[in-house]
Amino acid sequence: MDNSNVKHWDNDHFLHPWEGMATLGKNDRTFIEGASGIHVMNEKGERLIDGPGGMWCTQIGYGREEMAEAMAEQARNLAYFSPFNNSNSTTARFAREIAKRAPGDLNNVFFTTGGSTAVDTAIRFVHFRNNLLGRPEKKKIISRQKAYHGSTFLAASVSGKERDRHWLDKADDLAHFLPDVNPLYRAPGQSEESFLKEKVSDLENAIVALGPENVAAFIAEPVLASGGVIVPPKGYHESCLNICKKYDVLYISDEVVTAFGRLGHWFASETVFGIQPDIVTCAKGMTSGYAPMGAAIISDRLIADVAGKDATFSNGYTYSGHPVSAAAGLKSMEIIEREKLLEHVRRVTPIFQDQLQQLGQIDIVTDVRGMGLMGCVQCSVDGDPQSDLGCDYEIGSQIDIECQKRGLLVRPVINMCVLSPPLIISESEIEQMFDVLRKGLEATSTWLSGIRGQ
Amino acid sequence: MDNSNVKHWDNDHFLHPWEGMATLGKNDRTFIEGASGIHVMNEKGERLIDGPGGMWCTQIGYGREEMAEAMAEQARNLAYFSPFNNSNSTTARFAREIAKRAPGDLNNVFFTTGGSTAVDTAIRFVHFRNNLLGRPEKKKIISRQKAYHGSTFLAASVSGKERDRHWLDKADDLAHFLPDVNPLYRAPGQSEESFLKEKVSDLENAIVALGPENVAAFIAEPVLASGGVIVPPKGYHESCLNICKKYDVLYISDEVVTAFGRLGHWFASETVFGIQPDIVTCAKGMTSGYAPMGAAIISDRLIADVAGKDATFSNGYTYSGHPVSAAAGLKSMEIIEREKLLEHVRRVTPIFQDQLQQLGQIDIVTDVRGMGLMGCVQCSVDGDPQSDLGCDYEIGSQIDIECQKRGLLVRPVINMCVLSPPLIISESEIEQMFDVLRKGLEATSTWLSGIRGQ
Repeated sequence: MDNSNVKHWDNDHFLHPWEGMATLGKNDRTFIEGASGIHVMNEKGERLIDGPGGMWCTQIGYGREEMAEAMAEQARNLAYFSPFNNSNSTTARFAREIAKRAPGDLNNVFFTTGGSTAVDTAIRFVHFRNNLLGRPEKKKIISRQKAYHGSTFLAASVSGKERDRHWLDKADDLAHFLPDVNPLYRAPGQSEESFLKEKVSDLENAIVALGPENVAAFIAEPVLASGGVIVPPKGYHESCLNICKKYDVLYISDEVVTAFGRLGHWFASETVFGIQPDIVTCAKGMTSGYAPMGAAIISDRLIADVAGKDATFSNGYTYSGHPVSAAAGLKSMEIIEREKLLEHVRRVTPIFQDQLQQLGQIDIVTDVRGMGLMGCVQCSVDGDPQSDLGCDYEIGSQIDIECQKRGLLVRPVINMCVLSPPLIISESEIEQMFDVLRKGLEATSTWLSGIRGQ
Repeated sequence: MDNSNVKHWDNDHFLHPWEGMATLGKNDRTFIEGASGIHVMNEKGERLIDGPGGMWCTQIGYGREEMAEAMAEQARNLAYFSPFNNSNSTTARFAREIAKRAPGDLNNVFFTTGGSTAVDTAIRFVHFRNNLLGRPEKKKIISRQKAYHGSTFLAASVSGKERDRHWLDKADDLAHFLPDVNPLYRAPGQSEESFLKEKVSDLENAIVALGPENVAAFIAEPVLASGGVIVPPKGYHESCLNICKKYDVLYISDEVVTAFGRLGHWFASETVFGIQPDIVTCAKGMTSGYAPMGAAIISDRLIADVAGKDATFSNGYTYSGHPVSAAAGLKSMEIIEREKLLEHVRRVTPIFQDQLQQLGQIDIVTDVRGMGLMGCVQCSVDGDPQSDLGCDYEIGSQIDIECQKRGLLVRPVINMCVLSPPLIISESEIEQMFDVLRKGLEATSTWLSGIRGQ
């Protein structure tokens, strides 16, 4: 096949997510043409460590022959069934395996096509239940600044990344946002304990101000991912769940990023943060990115409130529970188990986090933070962590350029780089990855000095 | 693998689309465990003709070895890339092939994960453009009763199937619905020409009443699919497009069902209905159902209004343009072309539609209608096409039971059965399918007489 024109086709015909209008049709994107293990290969044939793990999703790594075979086998045997009227054993089995691993009584798996539709479904279910319970006014969703929950209209409405809200409409009456929970931005001299208290009060105050009779749910990522790997203060989720219970507000734990091993466990809500949410949303790592799939996992308690009623939950997708995606999910789960990847993540996490911390010594780095195999390096021109404007936007891009030159793909998010490599990454590969990142950051620092010197 | 428990797992853990709460956990769904060509196989090993074509989607039929291989090859070589920062030649190539076949200047493909997210994206883009054009009040979407556009919160908000709107919240301020366009329900003695005029006036009157400055777009399926295969009066779409142009209202043609061959052409808007919409949404047939994928295809004209502006279209999905789905789409397209399936559909359509018409002689059948390889049989207890309540709900289910006994899977929608078999269906298979359907309808008629006799 002649691919000499693909860059033109990309610019002329492929509208990308978060497409910038200023550069529309004039992009020179890196083409990823192959991949194996933790490495991707660009169009020049250069091998790069996949820092962001695709998009927080390539848990078992690339090029797994048995994944290709499991998907092909399913496509050959049964490529599609309609989940509206029928069922299929591959998907029913995957639902059961997920339920076995999900926290507490979260036993009801509503399959979707990704994280956004999982969140959309979760919120629609919360509304459905309150309508059936005869309290149609209890609808508001409390979220947080810098939260990311997806990009359907509804999922975007509860997402709190300010830059994403420009120019696009939202259901503003449905959502309420709490202030940033990043301990980095606490008042000078404030203890982490006092900051925790403040953040939990933010939730309680909001519920009281809005009126508990109007608040349906609180939605929270255990660790805010694309908002910049923000780890809330210790004890935060437990205290928030208690507040939710006090006011009969549901807790939706958005584990699209954290589930399926990113923090060393199938799900992080209970094992890492000690909470049993009412609904967990997941996607990404669910199939290790090999096929599109997501799910909203609903508790038996919530289901008991609607079961037996004369009502239909009119929600779902042609591709809900797609058998090829389910086959990919089952095989990925099998591999994670067989290769003890959860244990592996827990073992290499201290090395990953230690290497990450060491980057804090570089002058342009204003904060490093992370958890499990999630990390974020935040930079600033002037060394002030509070500054978040102007040229900072380009720091991330420059780090990406400098790192790609040296064999590492990073994901620039404004003035930050986020890291979430495939879970299979070895100790020496972690060291290698951070070595490149350090050199990339230092080169970016030099580049910035050049700009400042002009 | 021991699958003896799958029916329990299905009931206990797999929440299906449009799950009925009254029967929750007590379903005895037909399991589809294998498929080949136009046939699916249930858990008892019985072979059934797939009447609904999965869910309007299995264009090239099941069990295609070369599809399994193309998907496996892509999964092996590159199972995922992030469309946010990178690109890939398989997806860029698929975008180009779609643009080549899409009507007029619809050259910009925004990949999504299915039809719902395609519609969600289309409407978000329409809003984005109007915000950038400085007319933030121009936001309302005009849709139609019985329209189905998906089940994200936003897509559901513009869907007009009444039963789906119970118990679920919608963005009611965003949508306005025009009356049913089904010629069956025109006034006694009204000519089709006068009905057409009335339906087009409905659109114009709505735009004028809402104020053109408040109306962003009109969304319409060329043939309303799950609403009951409703074919609007001849000339309808062309006249509606003219009205839209008159008031600067965009026309979104929702071709999730009709694109990729269902009516004998890649897209139906231009070739069948003579219109060049502003945005076309598609999914389903795009990959012949082998992998989840959808797209909103946007015209160059609309893109020209936003290109160069300092704004980001903050919309998109982790799985936008997934390479395995794109590989499936490219291969399906190649098969449709190589086997001349579009020509085949055009050739067998008269046989399909003729067979469908003949069912009108059965006493419980009150209407038959269709286009291309889409058909609908509408039934009623009392032979009155206007009656649409009570026991009628069960007619569809009973037809399904009677047909399954005889080797045909149909898709019951209240008192209707819809048909959209794989495009590869041969003339003799069409005859066989309708033969079973006739027997199933006759048996249902007998069953109904039994009930009435009680």
